[in-house]
Amino acid sequence: MRTGGVLNILGKLLILLSLFLLLPIPVSFYYQDGMMRDFLISSLIGALVGGVLVALFAPEKDLAYRDGFGVVVLSWLGLAFLGALPFYFSGQMPSFVDCYFESMSGFTTTGSTILTEVEVLPKSVLLWRAITHWLGGMGIIVLSLAILPLLGIGGMQLFQAEMPGPTKDRLAPRIQDTARILWSVYLLFTLVEVLLLMWGGLDLFDAVCHAFATLATGGFSTHTASIAFFNSVYVESVIILFMFLAGTNFTLHHLALTGQPSAYWRSEEFRFYLFVSSSSIAVLVLANWFAATYTSLGENLRNASFLVFSILTTTGFGTADFDQWPSVCRVLLVSLMFVGGCAGSTGGGIKVVRFLLFFKYARLQLRNIVHPRAVTTIKLGNDKVPREVMEAVLGFFALYIVVFLGASLVVTGLGVDLVTGTTAVIATLNNIGPGLAAVGPAQNFGHLPALAKVVLIFCMLAGRLELYTVAVLLTPGFWAMARKPVWRWQLSRVRQD
Amino acid sequence: MRTGGVLNILGKLLILLSLFLLLPIPVSFYYQDGMMRDFLISSLIGALVGGVLVALFAPEKDLAYRDGFGVVVLSWLGLAFLGALPFYFSGQMPSFVDCYFESMSGFTTTGSTILTEVEVLPKSVLLWRAITHWLGGMGIIVLSLAILPLLGIGGMQLFQAEMPGPTKDRLAPRIQDTARILWSVYLLFTLVEVLLLMWGGLDLFDAVCHAFATLATGGFSTHTASIAFFNSVYVESVIILFMFLAGTNFTLHHLALTGQPSAYWRSEEFRFYLFVSSSSIAVLVLANWFAATYTSLGENLRNASFLVFSILTTTGFGTADFDQWPSVCRVLLVSLMFVGGCAGSTGGGIKVVRFLLFFKYARLQLRNIVHPRAVTTIKLGNDKVPREVMEAVLGFFALYIVVFLGASLVVTGLGVDLVTGTTAVIATLNNIGPGLAAVGPAQNFGHLPALAKVVLIFCMLAGRLELYTVAVLLTPGFWAMARKPVWRWQLSRVRQD
Repeated sequence: MRTGGVLNILGKLLILLSLFLLLPIPVSFYYQDGMMRDFLISSLIGALVGGVLVALFAPEKDLAYRDGFGVVVLSWLGLAFLGALPFYFSGQMPSFVDCYFESMSGFTTTGSTILTEVEVLPKSVLLWRAITHWLGGMGIIVLSLAILPLLGIGGMQLFQAEMPGPTKDRLAPRIQDTARILWSVYLLFTLVEVLLLMWGGLDLFDAVCHAFATLATGGFSTHTASIAFFNSVYVESVIILFMFLAGTNFTLHHLALTGQPSAYWRSEEFRFYLFVSSSSIAVLVLANWFAATYTSLGENLRNASFLVFSILTTTGFGTADFDQWPSVCRVLLVSLMFVGGCAGSTGGGIKVVRFLLFFKYARLQLRNIVHPRAVTTIKLGNDKVPREVMEAVLGFFALYIVVFLGASLVVTGLGVDLVTGTTAVIATLNNIGPGLAAVGPAQNFGHLPALAKVVLIFCMLAGRLELYTVAVLLTPGFWAMARKPVWRWQLSRVRQD
Repeated sequence: MRTGGVLNILGKLLILLSLFLLLPIPVSFYYQDGMMRDFLISSLIGALVGGVLVALFAPEKDLAYRDGFGVVVLSWLGLAFLGALPFYFSGQMPSFVDCYFESMSGFTTTGSTILTEVEVLPKSVLLWRAITHWLGGMGIIVLSLAILPLLGIGGMQLFQAEMPGPTKDRLAPRIQDTARILWSVYLLFTLVEVLLLMWGGLDLFDAVCHAFATLATGGFSTHTASIAFFNSVYVESVIILFMFLAGTNFTLHHLALTGQPSAYWRSEEFRFYLFVSSSSIAVLVLANWFAATYTSLGENLRNASFLVFSILTTTGFGTADFDQWPSVCRVLLVSLMFVGGCAGSTGGGIKVVRFLLFFKYARLQLRNIVHPRAVTTIKLGNDKVPREVMEAVLGFFALYIVVFLGASLVVTGLGVDLVTGTTAVIATLNNIGPGLAAVGPAQNFGHLPALAKVVLIFCMLAGRLELYTVAVLLTPGFWAMARKPVWRWQLSRVRQD
């Protein structure tokens, strides 16, 4: 690995984050919550460390293929560290592990919290939590649509933003172009949601914080009761809509906004996303209707829709405590936890398209038995799925099972009970937020042993970075290669659709 | 499908089973438990129905490739039906669904029971339960080593018995040869275990019943307390040994008994089986040591070894109630439930070799990212794994997830609680026996809704027949093909190693 070049990039990102750390200062001044000095110190530390890194290490024009892994993982680790400082200085979280957990939960847009009572935090710190989500969401869009496809990870080359660009042959400009286009969509949606929420009676502060958390599919709220606090059909409806949008591939939004709204329907992943969500809502409504959980059908439908999108998009906002719903609802919701959003959205999880391909693969295998001589290929929309992409998707599932089992064994090995331990892993690995039982929607992660929190921090990071990015860094082969002369970014791997 | 030929085979199997139905009659006479007439009637019904089928439908010399699926599924369904009659006549089971559940649980070597109290059954009926296991085990050995490899299902072509035979080119003699060789091993082991158990003080009846249940990795005991009833270190040790043997590929036993004991060590699946079992035992011993579950290390080690082999081989015998163990033990044991025995053993589950290949696949994908240009293949032992075998294995996992999720949703949808419902599906789909919570080792399946029992019966059958066999029958394409002129068994699919 070209450590110098990687650290140079980290330094620049830390300096950038230190600028964002200045944003809560006026808020702190307005609400007089006494956090101005703490944010200033955090920002100075970020600028200082970042500056030292940039000064010590020269930028590297030609980063090697493998350096991409180092940049991505180190950025998330480092930024979450800097982002944890305001939590630590606020004195509201018992230990630095808790602060780091909360910060990583923010930057990975997970939304699991260690807080029993969210309202105890100063307003400026609540805003900072929301900002970590929003920045994490921006990072993810670029990561999944511009960087991971180049690294050829887990079949992500399929989901590359199909952007025409003037500079296809050089990497950095290409990433910058993609980022600019998609971030403008992200910004636009954020702005619209803020306005719609304010229209519904939220103050600017709550509107901004919840818009940030929605678009990033994060899930941090400024209230312990989450969205249920507002007790408003309108607010819930707005948030359902934007969770749905945030769970969709942002390339489709871009295409729709530039005059091709049919792009949505042409996307087979999007159609499957609609199918999964609507059929899940139907099952939940039926089950709650039989169990007479709600008195009115409208309330039933609203709660079901909210939860399906909250979980499917891995946002993790709460309105109803689904731990109290019939057990079939909980099995369905836990299953949805694994599915996650569309590729190229801010949602986590395994991703809708991977499940779609996985099921197509199972069907193909069945068909091969019935027609042993038929040559059949898997198609996504009108495109044939290349064999190596299908294999990367299947490998993703294999790796996922290894990480899931390993983490569950360690967490329950630390004395956490069965359902709490396994759903805590599911909730963090898929970047959702709440699990079941003692980490359920009405509970929090604060009571878990510190070591379990460290494992869950790893899960959040691994899940958010599509497993392979983190797993590759743990293979001895990677480091053996790193000592050899580096290669250039393998632009041959870029599919020019 | 050549329905006539398939029904002819079913008829012959029913007649064969009606002979086995005569076996409990002397036992009933000896113990004077009043079941002689019931077994005679059951036997006559079997002989009659079987006779009618054989008389009406002529044997078919050249069965089509696809007819194999019909034969296998229909045999299990039909034999379990006939096998349920003595349970029904005994009057000890509340409904026919319960009787069919118990019988299917026997023939699929699952071992889940609907009985609260096993001892209430007449002795001859207890023997019949054990016989259903033993016959099911015989069926499985032939199915997995002689029939499924020919059908090319789920990568099973890899695990074909490597038997030299004079008649490689015709199907029926080949299956008969393989069966004769492997059944002699199965018989020998049964005999040795009966003698060893009698040496330990069990009477002939208990010895035979438990030997049948062990070799078939079934799990029905003649006592509610299962093996814990005997309270004997010696008996437990004998059963651990034979569960271990029953979970091993019977081809390896055959090779070892005919002068090639090194066959065990040469099998990479066997080595992985040893690795998984010994490391699991180590984790359980450590966890129970920390939790101070047992006073002596020997007792701890014995209970851990018993449970690991009981679950890994999907036998499901109980000594300790592991639902009371620390939660990490339960997570590990639930994980082991999916693994199952070696291919070509009587054990159920996904099979050790499929997990081995799955993990190798994940590692290969990781390696491909680090060395994008290296061409790497997956090896099992010294043999390259053909791509289509690897794909069939991965497709098996995909199909497994579909069946598992679907069944869990239906069972919990019927009002069964989360842990009970999902572990009931795990326990039946992997042919283990007990699950957790209300279907835990100290509980039974009797209290579940009738429809849930039907779903679980389907799970037992689907799991036992390697999913594809059953799933293929549910595809419309299979039946569309069935109406066209049939092909011959595709012997081109037989790999001649």
